[in-house]
Amino acid sequence: MNDPAPKDPDFDARVRESFARQGLMETLGASLVRVAPGRVEIALATSSAVSQQHGFVHAGALASIADSAAGYAALTLMPPGAGVLTAEFKINLMAPGVGERMVARGRVIKAGRTLTLAQADVFAIHEGREKQIALLTATLMAVEGREGVSS
Amino acid sequence: MNDPAPKDPDFDARVRESFARQGLMETLGASLVRVAPGRVEIALATSSAVSQQHGFVHAGALASIADSAAGYAALTLMPPGAGVLTAEFKINLMAPGVGERMVARGRVIKAGRTLTLAQADVFAIHEGREKQIALLTATLMAVEGREGVSS
Amino acid sequence: MNDPAPKDPDFDARVRESFARQGLMETLGASLVRVAPGRVEIALATSSAVSQQHGFVHAGALASIADSAAGYAALTLMPPGAGVLTAEFKINLMAPGVGERMVARGRVIKAGRTLTLAQADVFAIHEGREKQIALLTATLMAVEGREGVSS
Amino acid sequence: MNDPAPKDPDFDARVRESFARQGLMETLGASLVRVAPGRVEIALATSSAVSQQHGFVHAGALASIADSAAGYAALTLMPPGAGVLTAEFKINLMAPGVGERMVARGRVIKAGRTLTLAQADVFAIHEGREKQIALLTATLMAVEGREGVSS
Repeated sequence: MNDPAPKDPDFDARVRESFARQGLMETLGASLVRVAPGRVEIALATSSAVSQQHGFVHAGALASIADSAAGYAALTLMPPGAGVLTAEFKINLMAPGVGERMVARGRVIKAGRTLTLAQADVFAIHEGREKQIALLTATLMAVEGREGVSS
Repeated sequence: MNDPAPKDPDFDARVRESFARQGLMETLGASLVRVAPGRVEIALATSSAVSQQHGFVHAGALASIADSAAGYAALTLMPPGAGVLTAEFKINLMAPGVGERMVARGRVIKAGRTLTLAQADVFAIHEGREKQIALLTATLMAVEGREGVSS
Repeated sequence: MNDPAPKDPDFDARVRESFARQGLMETLGASLVRVAPGRVEIALATSSAVSQQHGFVHAGALASIADSAAGYAALTLMPPGAGVLTAEFKINLMAPGVGERMVARGRVIKAGRTLTLAQADVFAIHEGREKQIALLTATLMAVEGREGVSS
Repeated sequence: MNDPAPKDPDFDARVRESFARQGLMETLGASLVRVAPGRVEIALATSSAVSQQHGFVHAGALASIADSAAGYAALTLMPPGAGVLTAEFKINLMAPGVGERMVARGRVIKAGRTLTLAQADVFAIHEGREKQIALLTATLMAVEGREGVSS
């Protein structure tokens, strides 16, 4: 998408405040790395606390940071007051999650009034080298005027 | 699927031992409720530790227990020594995750030699009533003879 | 879903008229078999006109009848005047499409005001025996008041 | 993916011969535009023969050319003698298919020994302008030594 124009000048603060309320991100040890119009990056430090049975990072942990990265990328382009909910996502796992750090980079593919399509690429960083290990596509829904659902 | 016949008589112990090694499940507070041929159920106690920004259970947490439920349902039908990896999954979120407890029920749709298709229905249990809130479909891959990947 | 109640008493005629306008269905040789509240069945006669390179029915042809079956299942529960559009679908292919006839059975999983989740099971009928060969899940959007989009 | 190296020097002829055997592509009026290592482009002339009920191109027709584009992109990187089958795909529809011509551009994201992940971007060309209208991600399986399944 070219030149996405945020409808909310405070999009950065809005995403950071919302992220801070996601208890799951803190539980997993995930952090917000970057917020830009239509793009959000989230990192996860690898440990046995997020592993599956073979010691790789669990697909669910990768999906969690990728879903948040895609969802917040969508939120950067939504009008003030709108909340974002995930309608669905699909994740393809291309290689095991092995490395010191996992990074999910979300970006908006198409921002619509009701539905936004976003994608997140997930990379494993191992000894300073990046390798793509997963690809997520998500449909995000903008929710306006529903009690308890904003940002 | 009718009458799935486990190829490994010890499928129950195998799933339980593998689940115990999934660090993410312990971190999330998830527990293994039921193991049967082609079917596995995993529960998650709701708390702010697994929430998204509006206080609902995070889609990533629901995806995590649903992916494990589908993956272990697949593993119950795999031969001894085979490991299971998720190739991809898609999850549709139908309603917000609100309630005391979330339950993911995985079941095998088609068990193949290399690829298994499984589905997981996710329910929120609120004041004793069950409501379906998500549906996951996953492609699981049986991995044999790869170092570090068994069960 | 239990007891889906159609909001449009003429849902049957509405689906049949809409189906008749789908040029693709006629091109493929597909026919509408059954319309009921929340459920629609579409059949496809097998021929080389819908094949892929090995002579199996092309995944795109299976996806076409499954998408229409899921979409029309959703439409049976929408209010008069609303049009239905597919936001996304995923299809898992479980076995090659081999047989005289392919049948897609769509059913609504969750009917919402804006978004409906539906599933379609696809079967191959070969020498009188049915075998499930594909599973589709779709997100359908109800569109109201957009010019050119109704039923 | 950088510098994908075809394992089969005759990948171009192999894709073209296989495409010519896909009866569905001829039925839809689709044509093979471009074959390169890891990339294949397929075009579809718009007509009422591929429409849905509102006159837009049917999601199933878009999925058909996108699935073939992704599948053949995968085939360009497979060893001689291997056949390609679609295990699953997901397609997100971003805008109605309106225009004289639809184009699906498939590309390989990750080529594995058994499974390949590919993506196809679908564009509508209307009065000389291109607009992306759909995004497909697919898991393709390389099949070797199965009777009747090659290329």
